[in-house]
Amino acid sequence: MKKTAFIGLGNMGGPMAQNLLKAGHQLHVFDLQQAAIDQAVQHGAIGFSNAVEAVSQVDLVISMLPAGKHVLDLYLGENGIAKDLAKDSLIIDCSTIDSSASVQLAEQLRLLNLRVLDAPVSGGVGGAKAGTLTFIVGGSAYDFEEAKEVLSAMGTKLFHAGSHGAGQVAKICNNMLLSVLMAGTSEALQMAIDNGLDAKVMSDIMLQSSGRNWTLEVYNPCPNVLENVPSSNDYQGGFMVDLMNKDLGLAKDTALNSHSNTPMGDLARNLYSEHSLQGNGHRDFSSIFEMFADKNEKE
Amino acid sequence: MKKTAFIGLGNMGGPMAQNLLKAGHQLHVFDLQQAAIDQAVQHGAIGFSNAVEAVSQVDLVISMLPAGKHVLDLYLGENGIAKDLAKDSLIIDCSTIDSSASVQLAEQLRLLNLRVLDAPVSGGVGGAKAGTLTFIVGGSAYDFEEAKEVLSAMGTKLFHAGSHGAGQVAKICNNMLLSVLMAGTSEALQMAIDNGLDAKVMSDIMLQSSGRNWTLEVYNPCPNVLENVPSSNDYQGGFMVDLMNKDLGLAKDTALNSHSNTPMGDLARNLYSEHSLQGNGHRDFSSIFEMFADKNEKE
Amino acid sequence: MKKTAFIGLGNMGGPMAQNLLKAGHQLHVFDLQQAAIDQAVQHGAIGFSNAVEAVSQVDLVISMLPAGKHVLDLYLGENGIAKDLAKDSLIIDCSTIDSSASVQLAEQLRLLNLRVLDAPVSGGVGGAKAGTLTFIVGGSAYDFEEAKEVLSAMGTKLFHAGSHGAGQVAKICNNMLLSVLMAGTSEALQMAIDNGLDAKVMSDIMLQSSGRNWTLEVYNPCPNVLENVPSSNDYQGGFMVDLMNKDLGLAKDTALNSHSNTPMGDLARNLYSEHSLQGNGHRDFSSIFEMFADKNEKE
Amino acid sequence: MKKTAFIGLGNMGGPMAQNLLKAGHQLHVFDLQQAAIDQAVQHGAIGFSNAVEAVSQVDLVISMLPAGKHVLDLYLGENGIAKDLAKDSLIIDCSTIDSSASVQLAEQLRLLNLRVLDAPVSGGVGGAKAGTLTFIVGGSAYDFEEAKEVLSAMGTKLFHAGSHGAGQVAKICNNMLLSVLMAGTSEALQMAIDNGLDAKVMSDIMLQSSGRNWTLEVYNPCPNVLENVPSSNDYQGGFMVDLMNKDLGLAKDTALNSHSNTPMGDLARNLYSEHSLQGNGHRDFSSIFEMFADKNEKE
Repeated sequence: MKKTAFIGLGNMGGPMAQNLLKAGHQLHVFDLQQAAIDQAVQHGAIGFSNAVEAVSQVDLVISMLPAGKHVLDLYLGENGIAKDLAKDSLIIDCSTIDSSASVQLAEQLRLLNLRVLDAPVSGGVGGAKAGTLTFIVGGSAYDFEEAKEVLSAMGTKLFHAGSHGAGQVAKICNNMLLSVLMAGTSEALQMAIDNGLDAKVMSDIMLQSSGRNWTLEVYNPCPNVLENVPSSNDYQGGFMVDLMNKDLGLAKDTALNSHSNTPMGDLARNLYSEHSLQGNGHRDFSSIFEMFADKNEKE
Repeated sequence: MKKTAFIGLGNMGGPMAQNLLKAGHQLHVFDLQQAAIDQAVQHGAIGFSNAVEAVSQVDLVISMLPAGKHVLDLYLGENGIAKDLAKDSLIIDCSTIDSSASVQLAEQLRLLNLRVLDAPVSGGVGGAKAGTLTFIVGGSAYDFEEAKEVLSAMGTKLFHAGSHGAGQVAKICNNMLLSVLMAGTSEALQMAIDNGLDAKVMSDIMLQSSGRNWTLEVYNPCPNVLENVPSSNDYQGGFMVDLMNKDLGLAKDTALNSHSNTPMGDLARNLYSEHSLQGNGHRDFSSIFEMFADKNEKE
Repeated sequence: MKKTAFIGLGNMGGPMAQNLLKAGHQLHVFDLQQAAIDQAVQHGAIGFSNAVEAVSQVDLVISMLPAGKHVLDLYLGENGIAKDLAKDSLIIDCSTIDSSASVQLAEQLRLLNLRVLDAPVSGGVGGAKAGTLTFIVGGSAYDFEEAKEVLSAMGTKLFHAGSHGAGQVAKICNNMLLSVLMAGTSEALQMAIDNGLDAKVMSDIMLQSSGRNWTLEVYNPCPNVLENVPSSNDYQGGFMVDLMNKDLGLAKDTALNSHSNTPMGDLARNLYSEHSLQGNGHRDFSSIFEMFADKNEKE
Repeated sequence: MKKTAFIGLGNMGGPMAQNLLKAGHQLHVFDLQQAAIDQAVQHGAIGFSNAVEAVSQVDLVISMLPAGKHVLDLYLGENGIAKDLAKDSLIIDCSTIDSSASVQLAEQLRLLNLRVLDAPVSGGVGGAKAGTLTFIVGGSAYDFEEAKEVLSAMGTKLFHAGSHGAGQVAKICNNMLLSVLMAGTSEALQMAIDNGLDAKVMSDIMLQSSGRNWTLEVYNPCPNVLENVPSSNDYQGGFMVDLMNKDLGLAKDTALNSHSNTPMGDLARNLYSEHSLQGNGHRDFSSIFEMFADKNEKE
């Protein structure tokens, strides 16, 4: 196994690092929060007080950061670590960032003879803890093969989407479509309810018909149709509205750059934006269902 | 088996009647087109020159007509057949019409001591010929049970959606959602392509992720991702854009009546309307995919 | 002056009748509410206990009713008054109803040798009281000329939009566009505010630029930019959200009938529908402005 | 009068510079195209072969460039001119760029003791030639006053929108609203036409009613309603679809940055994007009207 550094031990990165440690990987870790480092050290990691030291003498770096600027700064900024990495080192950036930042990173690192994969994940904090994340990877097929072992310690599905940036694009296309499925399924269910149909009956019919989609299968937005989903738990847990809004902002950036026309995704983004403006930013994204119900009736 | 009349032998009704005849049902048939009657007679039906005669001495009537006004006229119009039917006869109307017409029909027929089910189908002409239609039924559970035998001769999936009109509502909710899935999947795939990704790779990733939906599973709108689908055959065959537009018009009527807010379905309807205005009304509905591609590149 | 009957003395019809009386017209009146009749009588009208009696011996009938079914029922229903009217009488229906109902009415009345104009109004209760309504009229040019005198007693702007039903179509096209102007202006102003601009400065700039429109001129949706508008009075008074929703429903019916594609109007309708679902149905329609503000900031 | 440098002599900048020369201003000019410099010199300017030389010994710089990156590069790039400007010089950047770039520029220039205004224009090439542009200016009120003289030589309307970046925001809000007005007016007119109304009659009615807006006043999108507008000249001239798309892209950037929800503007952008994809990028933006007509009828 490679000597590995893990930078960024937040809600996602923390449990991901723990799964690597469980799988026997030796980890050098760094985070801006000392408490996050301490917790990783308790699970067997070696902690460092800055990123440069953390990556010295490793040949694989994994990063999990909030946005493109943080990623670019970590590797290429004034105190960036890229210049300290051994030639031919592999970097796996698991952050969900704009694909143009991933492409820019790859271009700069190539000049330094470093290899990089963009490897954004889906599956949320639950998947990070359970080690069941999905990794959607952009970069060379060769590097993807090399990364499989370490990614397998953190996730169960590994996709190679294409060249640099393609991991970001694929994730964001998927999540844009997901927002469309969720909003479209919600309004269809509510229209059925408004006409006197039972939400469970309607869901079952659509599940077995051409309206079938992931939200009906495992994440029904109408309360009490499925058990153990956020909608049956007052929309707690799951994937927050504001995280969906972050991804839909990235989708918009991507569409603007590629001159793509995405009316359905744009409208879903408008609906999620309005939903957040109304104070629902921290609830599960299936709570968009409530937007279609008549609030007047409740009074 | 009941003595049965079948009214309306068009593209859908014709093959449905043939499947009933194959299954051993005795059928009295009528259609406004003599040729359609002749064809059914060749398959063993007894032809009549008007609807009133066709339904005399039967205790089950099946109808398959284009729109609500035709259905209301057949049963309740000036020469309507309702008054000629024996008390307690069962009517199965398989037409896709506005749910308010189905409800109105049921109310009037109840006054005449007649029973009715609205039983719109999905599956298209192909399903009608193969006897693999889906029936989505509204009316009493008792009548639904009684209808199962005869419906099974024409279809493989039978759903009881709820009371009168619920069959129409459920079908139209499903098809509205389908239009959203198709448009949303199309734009997501095109955005991936615009960013250099392979359509098949992107489709596979979404199929195994939260973007999964019926169109990716069996009806991919991007040419040459799936075999034997309309998109791989120049969008020939399948479900025509103008039929989707008809269903989306019914969805709009339904939403207006129930004061339901359906922004995603409305936008999908706008896209399909524009697509038809551009001359694509007779192509398969997955051809909406072409709307998102850059036509300038073709020149 | 003609002997005139006025049917329908509600919020709009009541003050319209009073203005006719003020102008010296002799009015026979009827309403389902006795109190409304009594009030008109106090202003000089002659009250009747049913519509048939009210229209006997008049040669002009004006009606102001809520929906197409009421209008069709008044003239053509079981106790309809059309058969009691003298040949060549003129009917001016000021109700805002679906244009197909206006056309249907005109066709039936022509068979009875009666003349009719559809003459929906804009200007609201305020305009009805002040006698400053706008009438948008469909029917023959000859009948429009004849109607001018009586309409002038109730309004200041008289438009001849075209043949039967054109009055309804023109009003509904205008109001659909108005909903687009109001929603579009609201979101543009809020985006300026979100970026630190002053709403009044931004309004002034757009008023003098290509964004100029009626809402900026006389009905600014942002509080305290204009005086004496609903937005500066907690969105009280003016034109209620639910009345806009009624008109947008008529617009949708019209578009469905003529196979017109109206994406902007449909989206405005979705926004107004959502706004109403949130409990704003009885506020002025410029309150849509609040939909674009961040409700989280208020807490 | 100040000694002034003018950088960027394209379709807009060229005629703007000529108007300054006509008004007696002494101009040092630079452009990447030698031909553009030559043309300005013919009108009395002094040409330079690079920007640094052009701005030496001037105390006012005007720039007109395509995008934010060009502006930032001109002033702050490797060979940027900011460091060569005399303390307290005034810069008027007339480019239409993202407001965040204008803000960034202002912040950097302040550190160098330079003053700057963002002053994007509207009025197009025609307005640039005629000297009738509108300037929408962001920056200090003091600097705005100082700029009035020189701006008056190029335009007739000068607005002070607010602090740095506010000029860009105000222009982009206006143009986003304009796209909404144009699309909304187009679909309303087409719906009227689809129902048999005359486009001119409908336009006149809306002009005098609550649908009134700039497009109906001076830029009717329906051919032959107004004379001397692009729609009456096969949509030639005027403001190109792809320029509207550029502005709508800036609007989207602005909305993303300020977390503003702009559903109407987003939908207008989708329509304009689709219109461009269909090959209409170089036609006047009022050609969006054609999107709502039935292309099937033409065959």
